[in-house]
Order: sequence, then C-alpha cells, then structure tokens
Amino acid sequence: MRASSAIADVTVDDVRPVDVDSVFERVQQAMAPRLRAAVDRLPAAIRGVVGYHFGWYDGSGRSVNCPAGKLLRPALTLSCAQAVGGSADRAVDAALAVELVHNFSLLHDDVMDGDVTRRHRRAVWSQFGVPAAILAGDALLALAVEVLAESGATPATATGSVSTLCVALRDLVEGQCKDISFERRDDVTVEECLAMAGGKTAALLRCACELGAVHGGGTPAQVSALARFGWHLGVAFQLVDDLLGIWGDPQATGKPSLADLRARKKTLPVVAALAAPGARGRRLAQVYLRPDPLTERDLATVAALVELAGGRRWAQTEAQRQLHAALGYLKAAEPVAEAHEALVALAALVTRRDR
Amino acid sequence: MRASSAIADVTVDDVRPVDVDSVFERVQQAMAPRLRAAVDRLPAAIRGVVGYHFGWYDGSGRSVNCPAGKLLRPALTLSCAQAVGGSADRAVDAALAVELVHNFSLLHDDVMDGDVTRRHRRAVWSQFGVPAAILAGDALLALAVEVLAESGATPATATGSVSTLCVALRDLVEGQCKDISFERRDDVTVEECLAMAGGKTAALLRCACELGAVHGGGTPAQVSALARFGWHLGVAFQLVDDLLGIWGDPQATGKPSLADLRARKKTLPVVAALAAPGARGRRLAQVYLRPDPLTERDLATVAALVELAGGRRWAQTEAQRQLHAALGYLKAAEPVAEAHEALVALAALVTRRDR
Repeated sequence: MRASSAIADVTVDDVRPVDVDSVFERVQQAMAPRLRAAVDRLPAAIRGVVGYHFGWYDGSGRSVNCPAGKLLRPALTLSCAQAVGGSADRAVDAALAVELVHNFSLLHDDVMDGDVTRRHRRAVWSQFGVPAAILAGDALLALAVEVLAESGATPATATGSVSTLCVALRDLVEGQCKDISFERRDDVTVEECLAMAGGKTAALLRCACELGAVHGGGTPAQVSALARFGWHLGVAFQLVDDLLGIWGDPQATGKPSLADLRARKKTLPVVAALAAPGARGRRLAQVYLRPDPLTERDLATVAALVELAGGRRWAQTEAQRQLHAALGYLKAAEPVAEAHEALVALAALVTRRDR
Repeated sequence: MRASSAIADVTVDDVRPVDVDSVFERVQQAMAPRLRAAVDRLPAAIRGVVGYHFGWYDGSGRSVNCPAGKLLRPALTLSCAQAVGGSADRAVDAALAVELVHNFSLLHDDVMDGDVTRRHRRAVWSQFGVPAAILAGDALLALAVEVLAESGATPATATGSVSTLCVALRDLVEGQCKDISFERRDDVTVEECLAMAGGKTAALLRCACELGAVHGGGTPAQVSALARFGWHLGVAFQLVDDLLGIWGDPQATGKPSLADLRARKKTLPVVAALAAPGARGRRLAQVYLRPDPLTERDLATVAALVELAGGRRWAQTEAQRQLHAALGYLKAAEPVAEAHEALVALAALVTRRDR
C-alpha cells in the first residue's frame, strides 16, 4: 500500500486535464542541454563527480545514462513564466539556477544524513568521499549564482533574482539545521515540523515559482501569488516525501524501506502521531524515543503505530489542504490557460507521485 | 627557527614604511560591526555556530572575545579601493563578502581535512558536528552573495561583482579538489602544485583586490593590475603557509607542529624537495610516500629531508619572487600614495607573518 493511493486526485473546475508527461518532456528538452553546458563550465575534477550525480557518468567517468531527477523545479519555473504571459525561454537561466541549487542541497544532504543511496545508485560521498561531495555541492551553488547573475533582461532583474535565491538558501539552511536538531529532541511540535518543512523544501519551490514569474514579466501581484503557490506546493511535497519515507516502495523511491524511521527522523507523520492523544502515541514514544537501536521488528511496529495514532492520515489530509491552498494562489495569479493546466498537472503529480 | 626568519623584508624605493598594525586597526573598526550585522541576518541556529567560528561565542553560546582572523582580505579590498582614488566606504560590502567567503572555505576545509583545531580552538565540525559545519559554510556563502548582490553604485556593478566572486569560487573549489587528489598521487609536479595554490588561495586574494578596485571606481587597467597583484600575493601567501605548516611555531599558528606532514600533504616545499635531484629527494620519497603511518621520528626526518633537499629554500625564494611580481603589478596600477604604502605593508606582512 503506497502513500500515493490515499491522496485524492486533483480536480480544478475550469482546468482541462493535461498530460504531465508531455510537460516534463518539453522541460527535459529545454533544460537537458543547458544543464550539460552549465556543468561543462566546472573544473574537470568536479565535472566528473557532478556528472556522476546527474547520471551522465559512472564511477570511473564512463558515459552512462542513468535516470536523474524529474526536473520538477525547472518545470515550475518555466510554467510560471508562461503563466504570466512570458515565454519559457526567458526563464531558462532561472530554471537552471534553481535546479543547480536543488542538486547542491542533495549532495550536502546525503553527507549530513549519511544516506548511502541516491536515485538507485551510491550517493556521491559514498562513491567519491565526503570532500568530493562537499566540493561538488559548493561548486553547484556557485554555478547557480553565476548563471543567475548573468540572467534576465536587465542587471536589476539579475541582482533581484540573486537576492531572491539567497533568501531561499537561507531558509533552506535553516530548515536543514532544524531537521538535524530535531533528531536530538523529543518535544518537537507539529508546527515546528511544518516550519522546518517549509524551509527545507518549500523555500526552493517558492523561489522556483517566484523567479519564473519575475523572468516571465509578471506583475508584483502575480509574482507574489505564484510565490505562495510554490510555498504551499512545497509543504505538500514534503508531506508526501515523509509519507514515502515510511510507506514508499523502495523499488520506486530508490531508498531502503522505512529509511526515515531507521534514521529516527522526526518527520511530519511521526511528529503528528507522537503528538496525538491516546495510548498509541504514548506507545510510539516509548519505542521510537528510547536510545536503543531499532530492530527490523521495532521498525514495523513504529510504522504501524504512526498509522494507528493517525499520523499517516493527518499527513495525507494536510498535504491535500496545502495543495488546495496552493491551487487557490495559482488561480489568484490569473494564469494563462495552458500554463494553468500544466501547473495544476504538476501540482497533482507532487501529491500523486510514488518516488 | 621560523619560516619568517629567512624571508627578507620588503623594500620599495618610493614608498614610506607604514605601520601595518594601524592599517589593520582601521580595517577592524570598519569591518567588525558590519560582520556582526551580516551574521545577525542568519537564522538563530546557524548564528551560534558561525559566531563561535568568529570567536564571539563559546561552545554553549555565551559571549566571549577570542582572537579571530586578521581580516587580511578586507584590508586588501578597502586599500585597493583607496588605491584607485575611491573611498574605502564604497568597498565595504565587497570586503565583507570576501571575508564571508574566506570563512565559508575555512569551515568546509576543516571538515574535509579533518583538522580538529582552528585559531587555537576546536574547529566547528569538531565542536558542533559535521552537518553544522557544512550548513554554516553554506550559509556564509549564500550570505556573501547576498551582500554583494546588494552592493555597488549600480545593479551592473553588483552583477559584475557577483560574477567575479563566482569565478573565484570556481577556482577555489578546483584548487581544493586538486589539493585532495594530490594526497593520493606520488607524481605531483611543482607546476601543478603552484597551480593548485593559485586556486586554493590566490583566487580569493585576487578577487579581494579586483572587487576593491572595481568598487573604488578604478579604470579597467587598474582593476586588471590590482587583480594580478592579488593573485601573486596569494601564491606568496600559500608558500609561506606551507612553510609555516612544517616549520611554524604551534604557539603562533594555532595548529599542531608538523601538521601538514602528519596529514602527508603535498605542499609546495615538499613537492619541490621530492622533485629535487639527488639522494635526499629520493630518501624523502622513500619515507614520505610509503603507506605506513609516520612516527614522530619519521616526521622529524621528513622535515629535515625537505630542508636538506632544498624544498624550504626553494619555497622561500619563490615566495620572494611572487611578492616582487605582486609589487610590480601594484606599481603598474599607479596607486594613490597612502594606499600604496598600506598595500606594500600588507604584502610584506604576508611573507613576514608567523601565523
């Protein structure tokens, strides 16, 4: 039983259903060569490591073609540019910068979390060592800024975009910092956990949408509405991520089963279950918060208790709530019809995905 | 016997000797409150870690006043702005950004090198853990970009400055990458090692000087000459750093004695000694390049062999040569007299320092 099964499909009255695969296909076509060209600007020693991360090379530097990320963030950026009546072309650099930042954060996250697997392959730090992963992340962050500094119709758009990205980075780092500190705490509230998810995940989705709207030439009201759309979509994204981290299919997610529970993460369904009144929440706390190592049987018990205490249901409902908030802001931006359809399809995917 | 003892004082015919302490005092006064204000923009969780790194807090977050960095890079930026006839005030944001980037690189370097001590205290990763050190570094990098994006008289200056910083970051990452790869190689040439030092150290000093000249309103010829001044000064700086890493006084450097040899670093004096013809270079290779752990006695032997094979003398001479090249470019920038004096004093300090 997957998380995706229990989150209802999105229906928006005045929007035609659109094939999200065709949206991603266009984004892939627009972005893939530019991503390659940007990474080619990196020094050779880093290029190999980053190319491995993107699925272009194996560990020995031979060309391969492994599945990489879906390019959800660039899809949001380009669609938001179109939503305000601009062309996707004008937002390609911004989309590229956001995708580079996303991958910077994955590289550093895997080091910090000690996650050995990423996209069904060894994580960069596990393949090339921690220093290589830190440096590759640093290089991607600098490259993202460089791409953005050279972007936009005017230097003022470029500096504004760089500032927007830096604000997102600050929120991102704060979210990750909280995420780590939560591992040592037993009294994390649902509100704190939602704020953490906002920083860790929603800040960059907000930035992706905001930059798309700015580079597409949107009005301040449109930029603001699409930024909020991205934020709420990001919180929904993290809720689904947390559901998949417990109940996801390892074949689909590319991560070990119950990965987040093994790491004793204070994810949203867990924190909601711990906060729930009643015997099941208390029993969960007894098993999950004690210092002893968790056996496979303990992990199964924990997953069952999170569900029985209502953590799973709460996370599904909250994801739905955030998604609807997101769609409200999207509509408020008075988007161009075709881009509206694409963004609704992307939003639906976020909550329907299995990986 | 210290490295500093064998590097001759700098004399430049048409420049009055100036008290470098008074230069640093002015820079401290200009920069300290702005550095604090910039760090105050960081999320609380990161602020404590960064404030510890800067010597403002102890490990529990209590205010202390530990010696922090000398602010050499801001001193170069502000003096270069003055050298082209601008006011130091106009370059303060650029100086701040460069100092933040310097500290970003220190935080990540200590993780990568496993260095436990920084400025006579526990390094951040050793005090707060690797994730905190990675995140604090990431936060400082983003903050530096943000400060620079908001700097300058025009958005065009700001975007140009951000691009300049990003180029320096790419060189920096490349240099660090090479530094790490050298540890696994036995055939590093002196030329490769100088190029590595250029990236690892000189790129940011070049950037410090270039941004100072730009924000001071220098001509393209002045900007280019001062960038080269910074580059050669940076290579000299790294040569002296490498000398101190072997023969420096631990009391002054704040690092264990023979620290670089313990880590089997391929630093410039070592690589020069390994490349030297004759029995001593060969003997050095036998001891230093074998895989067994190095005893205290081995370390003393290695240091002696690097010296006997001429590695120490070569590094001293090369530092002097780089310093003179730097001073040539400084003069070519036709600097204002007072700033010229300050920059000569700063350059002299780089090669005369004991820490």
